[in-house]
Amino acid sequence: MMTFLSHSGFRVAILQLTVTADKPSNVAVAVERIQKSKISGCSLAILPECFNAPYDTALFRQYAEVIPGGQTCNALSQAAKSNQIYIVGGSIPEICDGKVYNTCTVWDPNGDLIAKHRKVLFIYVHLFDVSIPGSTCFKESDAMSAGNTLNTFQFGKFKIGLGICYDIRFSEMAALYRKQGCDMLIYPGAFCTEIGPLHWSLLTRFRAMENQAFVAVVSPARVTDSSYVAWGHSMIVDPWGKVLCEATEKDMDLYIDFDFGIRENIRQQIPTEYQRRTDMYDTIYMTNKINS
Amino acid sequence: MMTFLSHSGFRVAILQLTVTADKPSNVAVAVERIQKSKISGCSLAILPECFNAPYDTALFRQYAEVIPGGQTCNALSQAAKSNQIYIVGGSIPEICDGKVYNTCTVWDPNGDLIAKHRKVLFIYVHLFDVSIPGSTCFKESDAMSAGNTLNTFQFGKFKIGLGICYDIRFSEMAALYRKQGCDMLIYPGAFCTEIGPLHWSLLTRFRAMENQAFVAVVSPARVTDSSYVAWGHSMIVDPWGKVLCEATEKDMDLYIDFDFGIRENIRQQIPTEYQRRTDMYDTIYMTNKINS
Repeated sequence: MMTFLSHSGFRVAILQLTVTADKPSNVAVAVERIQKSKISGCSLAILPECFNAPYDTALFRQYAEVIPGGQTCNALSQAAKSNQIYIVGGSIPEICDGKVYNTCTVWDPNGDLIAKHRKVLFIYVHLFDVSIPGSTCFKESDAMSAGNTLNTFQFGKFKIGLGICYDIRFSEMAALYRKQGCDMLIYPGAFCTEIGPLHWSLLTRFRAMENQAFVAVVSPARVTDSSYVAWGHSMIVDPWGKVLCEATEKDMDLYIDFDFGIRENIRQQIPTEYQRRTDMYDTIYMTNKINS
Repeated sequence: MMTFLSHSGFRVAILQLTVTADKPSNVAVAVERIQKSKISGCSLAILPECFNAPYDTALFRQYAEVIPGGQTCNALSQAAKSNQIYIVGGSIPEICDGKVYNTCTVWDPNGDLIAKHRKVLFIYVHLFDVSIPGSTCFKESDAMSAGNTLNTFQFGKFKIGLGICYDIRFSEMAALYRKQGCDMLIYPGAFCTEIGPLHWSLLTRFRAMENQAFVAVVSPARVTDSSYVAWGHSMIVDPWGKVLCEATEKDMDLYIDFDFGIRENIRQQIPTEYQRRTDMYDTIYMTNKINS
């Protein structure tokens, strides 16, 4: 049975796991934490970006699996069904026709795959000149292919839009989800410790405020001796841009009650949606599904 | 003589004035503060939204003047010329063909009007049901007409885009300025004390980060017994989204040194400009000058 707190409210689990090099162990930890979140009354559990493998471009292909049918998907499907819970499966490296993608899967309480999102936009950050030894240069496009579609799923009567990490930087993508009527946006993500302090919370709060929707960002826990050190600080922000709950950098789960009812209230109070000067500009969707 | 601190740097003044019901006095205070900022080495002085009149829709028409040629414009033109300084004249109520606009004027060191921006988007905020006595309901469109153009001006080799207050909420407008190559965005604005704490700094930091440009927001000082109580907290944010300098709510001037050189550096480090998935979406400019 799904647990709804009220007509328009429910409890969500944000699972800020520690990711190791041991894939079966990562998956087992995720399944265990999903079970715990169900016992705690959650109807939806959200995992971090790249929760079953180290966040290392050189290793993506080695850890990649087909979707559905791979060991991680099978475990998530089973966990969703046995716990009667929705799961947003953070992301995992996916292999398809020889290409590797960074992909989020969504599972319903029947254990069915109801949505899939391939990361659209790549991280390409170098904080110092790349010729300087020890600089942070992380270029996903060396190892990954990009998605070409926007993806939503239905959670009860609510619509949720999906993005992964760097996707959150692009206003147009969120605006298109808003146009599609999304009540919430979920971005599994792993910002680095250089960019995280400046932009992680800023982006999350802004996306929520701008789109007058709930926004959840879910990071792996910080492991300081890994090749890519994640910022942590998973959070859920309400449509006002207020942080409802924020993790530290440590391994932890957040269970958050919230009520979609406030969204309509806010959209009436600051009706930006109806004030857009589309005579001066518009955001258009030029193409659609290419590779899905 | 213009004062440039270096090849790409200069000093900017943010003048967070107290606005009263006395128009000649408001203008005289602005001129005096502009003079002081020039003496302090500033090349550009920025005034708040509605700096010559109370921020009250019922009074806009009474305080309005033609642009150029009215008393406020004449004073700003003279101040720019005599002090050899650029002035972004916050905003003033403008009357034109019987319509009232909320308008920003920009003056160069020759005393010439080099740009004009009419507020495009209206504040329409009611924090509580309008039928509840004492609620905050501020609906500019009752008293004002909207601008229809984007407006920039050249400051040395730098391009600056203009918006007023609520204009900052609309990503597309800022994106169009970015496309036009703006190095900085300036938004004179007066957020109320209900919305200010949540959204003023969030919007300013985000616009700077998103567009990888400097952003200045300039508010009147807070006057707690006025009909519309401004948040204050004028600030300049750098292209990383870092606050360079922030006022409190009190009457004060900020003089800030900054260097446009860092913008190019940041645009190389996080090249979002070149990563936009225009195959999936684009921001287009559908119409242009209608009423100017």
